[in-house]
Amino acid sequence: MKMGMLGLGRMGSNMAQRLLRHGHEVVVWNRTPDKVRELEKMGAIGASSIQNLVEQLPHPRVAWMMVPAGEATETLFETLLSLLSAHDIVIDGGNANFRDSMRRGQRAAELGIEFIDAGTSGGIWGLANGYAIMAGGSSAAIDHVRPLMESLAPEDGFLHVGPIGSGHFVKMVHNGIEYGLLQAYAEGFEIMKKGPFELDLAAISHMWNHGSVVRSWLLELVENVFSTNPDLKGIRGYVEDSGEGRWTVEEAIKESVPAPVITLSLMARFASRQEESYSAQVIAALRNAFGGHAIKHDPS
Amino acid sequence: MKMGMLGLGRMGSNMAQRLLRHGHEVVVWNRTPDKVRELEKMGAIGASSIQNLVEQLPHPRVAWMMVPAGEATETLFETLLSLLSAHDIVIDGGNANFRDSMRRGQRAAELGIEFIDAGTSGGIWGLANGYAIMAGGSSAAIDHVRPLMESLAPEDGFLHVGPIGSGHFVKMVHNGIEYGLLQAYAEGFEIMKKGPFELDLAAISHMWNHGSVVRSWLLELVENVFSTNPDLKGIRGYVEDSGEGRWTVEEAIKESVPAPVITLSLMARFASRQEESYSAQVIAALRNAFGGHAIKHDPS
Amino acid sequence: MKMGMLGLGRMGSNMAQRLLRHGHEVVVWNRTPDKVRELEKMGAIGASSIQNLVEQLPHPRVAWMMVPAGEATETLFETLLSLLSAHDIVIDGGNANFRDSMRRGQRAAELGIEFIDAGTSGGIWGLANGYAIMAGGSSAAIDHVRPLMESLAPEDGFLHVGPIGSGHFVKMVHNGIEYGLLQAYAEGFEIMKKGPFELDLAAISHMWNHGSVVRSWLLELVENVFSTNPDLKGIRGYVEDSGEGRWTVEEAIKESVPAPVITLSLMARFASRQEESYSAQVIAALRNAFGGHAIKHDPS
Amino acid sequence: MKMGMLGLGRMGSNMAQRLLRHGHEVVVWNRTPDKVRELEKMGAIGASSIQNLVEQLPHPRVAWMMVPAGEATETLFETLLSLLSAHDIVIDGGNANFRDSMRRGQRAAELGIEFIDAGTSGGIWGLANGYAIMAGGSSAAIDHVRPLMESLAPEDGFLHVGPIGSGHFVKMVHNGIEYGLLQAYAEGFEIMKKGPFELDLAAISHMWNHGSVVRSWLLELVENVFSTNPDLKGIRGYVEDSGEGRWTVEEAIKESVPAPVITLSLMARFASRQEESYSAQVIAALRNAFGGHAIKHDPS
Repeated sequence: MKMGMLGLGRMGSNMAQRLLRHGHEVVVWNRTPDKVRELEKMGAIGASSIQNLVEQLPHPRVAWMMVPAGEATETLFETLLSLLSAHDIVIDGGNANFRDSMRRGQRAAELGIEFIDAGTSGGIWGLANGYAIMAGGSSAAIDHVRPLMESLAPEDGFLHVGPIGSGHFVKMVHNGIEYGLLQAYAEGFEIMKKGPFELDLAAISHMWNHGSVVRSWLLELVENVFSTNPDLKGIRGYVEDSGEGRWTVEEAIKESVPAPVITLSLMARFASRQEESYSAQVIAALRNAFGGHAIKHDPS
Repeated sequence: MKMGMLGLGRMGSNMAQRLLRHGHEVVVWNRTPDKVRELEKMGAIGASSIQNLVEQLPHPRVAWMMVPAGEATETLFETLLSLLSAHDIVIDGGNANFRDSMRRGQRAAELGIEFIDAGTSGGIWGLANGYAIMAGGSSAAIDHVRPLMESLAPEDGFLHVGPIGSGHFVKMVHNGIEYGLLQAYAEGFEIMKKGPFELDLAAISHMWNHGSVVRSWLLELVENVFSTNPDLKGIRGYVEDSGEGRWTVEEAIKESVPAPVITLSLMARFASRQEESYSAQVIAALRNAFGGHAIKHDPS
Repeated sequence: MKMGMLGLGRMGSNMAQRLLRHGHEVVVWNRTPDKVRELEKMGAIGASSIQNLVEQLPHPRVAWMMVPAGEATETLFETLLSLLSAHDIVIDGGNANFRDSMRRGQRAAELGIEFIDAGTSGGIWGLANGYAIMAGGSSAAIDHVRPLMESLAPEDGFLHVGPIGSGHFVKMVHNGIEYGLLQAYAEGFEIMKKGPFELDLAAISHMWNHGSVVRSWLLELVENVFSTNPDLKGIRGYVEDSGEGRWTVEEAIKESVPAPVITLSLMARFASRQEESYSAQVIAALRNAFGGHAIKHDPS
Repeated sequence: MKMGMLGLGRMGSNMAQRLLRHGHEVVVWNRTPDKVRELEKMGAIGASSIQNLVEQLPHPRVAWMMVPAGEATETLFETLLSLLSAHDIVIDGGNANFRDSMRRGQRAAELGIEFIDAGTSGGIWGLANGYAIMAGGSSAAIDHVRPLMESLAPEDGFLHVGPIGSGHFVKMVHNGIEYGLLQAYAEGFEIMKKGPFELDLAAISHMWNHGSVVRSWLLELVENVFSTNPDLKGIRGYVEDSGEGRWTVEEAIKESVPAPVITLSLMARFASRQEESYSAQVIAALRNAFGGHAIKHDPS
């Protein structure tokens, strides 16, 4: 089917390509036009503006937003609403907060426009393997775009999880879990690295992927990482977080659910980005004050 | 090849069967003889005693211990040492503490006996899928038993990880990671369960297993669990821990490695087994004492 | 000076009494009039309504709100704004979220009304010992009410911490710290309770309060608790949380500050209120699924 | 009474001085003699060797060990046993693991020698304020040395907590709690430091110490620290740990007690000492591998 993809970053570009490979007509727009040119070479139809993209779509128009959560999504969403009309469908495939998506769904509904929040997982491997897509929205809207979803996802990788907001909610929790999984593996590998044996971590992750209880797709990546860079040479232990982890913890708190592992995985990322820990400075100063314990002095 | 399997619990019995299926001759012994009878029906050679098992093996004899860590392993190990002679090989496939295995390796070496600590993962699915086996020991001993290992493991599922003790060390960390992975998934599913949407957790785990970043063998089990028992009916939130989790944390502490996720996964298990939290009682009493906050009174 | 106290719960009533004892004229109002009668007997001037309270105050009027955060505060605040005029002063002594207080400060400023957020600590002991008061607001407003603050606080127990919002911000963090302190003591006492020695916890806390590094006012309460109820008889381990703990964690996340101890103290309270842990149920089901580990079945 | 103090580090020297001030006769020995000279100037009786110290004591001899836990304590203890005789009393005032103390108590008992494990808190302030002393041992031995204990402790600061080992056990938990308290305060101060208001942390801790629920001796030190060095200038966030924290966590694990706050306070210290987090490096590498997220590269 013919659809519009707005935002051609790593994710949007790959998803457009995957749709093209599956025979869909994809009209593409990006804030900077070079990405549009690239996709045109792969068979996409370039749009010179958001309005131009909308004009090229058949009714009901299907516009897929693939831009960063927050400002960028908000702005693009409002622009789309001003250009679309009743029965058109806006899909947000980005990582928006599900409460924003619920609000946007209501905003769209006031204009008779359908809204789908499509949480999308798969990363840079999604182009080849397909993306797991968890979508919230009305059944009518979801049914209409099902051909797109089934092209983007591998078999069984698409699910209509519930009403508007639920797609991003499930994606949010998915990412929270991911934080925990990553931290669990990472702690284990640190314990092995610093333990009493000299171990081949690439070989161990490879073996674990063949029959062990902890085998997983992430562990296959661990294996790749250690095979190509066994000493993690040049990689700083500096880990960003991108919203969903924080929201998962905030949601756990709102629900009074104890979620120590997801929470501490998030906070380990905060710590990884601190040059110096202020709380540790406070404790160092206090230990000196009560016990006379030596302080490491900063030369500065 | 011909070998002896000592201990026919869930794991030992399944491993003996898998070896039989791959054409090995397996002499079996168990503390209670009914299990021996069962295995005989599947083609194993029954032994009436440990000594009888040892007598039926060719030199160098290969004796695989598959009994609970601690007392049971220690007793069986000492009995075996008294019956075996130089160049024979004792394999501990159980979940012993790696420091005990290092000690046992030295004990065996004094008698010229080889010792292999073979951490084994795969659970009840290992019979069908094969076990990931991570083994520590001398190259000579490992090479001798390689045919057994390669029958027990799926392709690439066996690894000689290092010297004596390293097999159980790697298995210990493997289980520590497993604690963290389980807790991460479990927290995520609790957040979904208690969140604002009514969700089909079986369908979500199925979809996640097709293309998402968190797909894994454990998540396939999650899927099975929710498909067959979506409300976890009849399952109490009571979780045992079996040694490796504790040892992993103790090792992390010994190495000064921060391992918050593995540690809290362990402690969540402790909490799951408490009818009442004493620390929460203390806090409830204190909040009443300073703020006049109401106490929930125990009817007793 | 003459002022109005609105809300005569445990805190408001005690604070009114303390002000009376220090010679202030206190006009009191409460949602239910019985509390007003009580305070009148102690010398307060009863008000039949909020309007009646406002009418009895000299200009600039000083109205102290001491009601639960959220709805109750919002409603009372709006009512007061409708009755007060420029240069009057509204003080919120409750536990409002500091962002709400910042918003209220702006709302009041539009009408020329001064707003002070006065975080108040001391609990039921404040009547006798005085309250620590951390206040945000303009210097003019703070200076005007300083006589009240200095009567409520013990010597050095009052501080103008900064602009509007900062009082409740500092109180929020204060309570977050309190969560951590309580949990630290509680864990220690649980470890002593379950350790290898039979210990007199009342005697130990008494001794610790005389010369040890962990001596504190909270430890004096611990001592009181164990002296009067050494077995914590009748006290359930059920711990409420009242907002500030959650906000502290949310603020830590907003600031990207790792705050594991405060966060886990909050989550321990969540866990204390769960009859059954859903995440533990998930793990119990999974362990059964992969390892055949026994499940504790719920009789229901 | 006349007693011997062995080990004149910060703690031993101060305790000897406090005993002298209270009229006791103190024979002192130290591995390096300069400290002995110092104490002689304050009225102590110098000993040229451990044997010389023992020879100068009346029967039953009271020998107080104040040396680092581990090797130093073990060596000194064995030397003392070889020089003392039945009914003499050895006191270990250091921070030994309570299981070592239980073993030493048994060792001493075989020779008819009494052993007291005296956990001692108070740090560098103990000389002036007195030390909280929690002692394990027989009632007879404790009664004999009570005059020393009552001189070292402030009023009510000495307690005979139970049999041999219990003194160091209670001290261990005391220090575990201290870890948690320090971390709770430190996190709170970091949240205030990085929050939306510019705050005077010295003034806030001073105010909190006057009437608030979190007032404590440690908070008085916080106040001192921020008064003299508000920016923590020159203090690195590098925090040692000295055994008791680790042992407390290990004991919690042995008892299956969830102790998240004490444990994470310990692990925060580990993290404070890492130049680079290996687990964070693993996660950074993995996020790049699955999502193409940028890696911060180490220039080296």
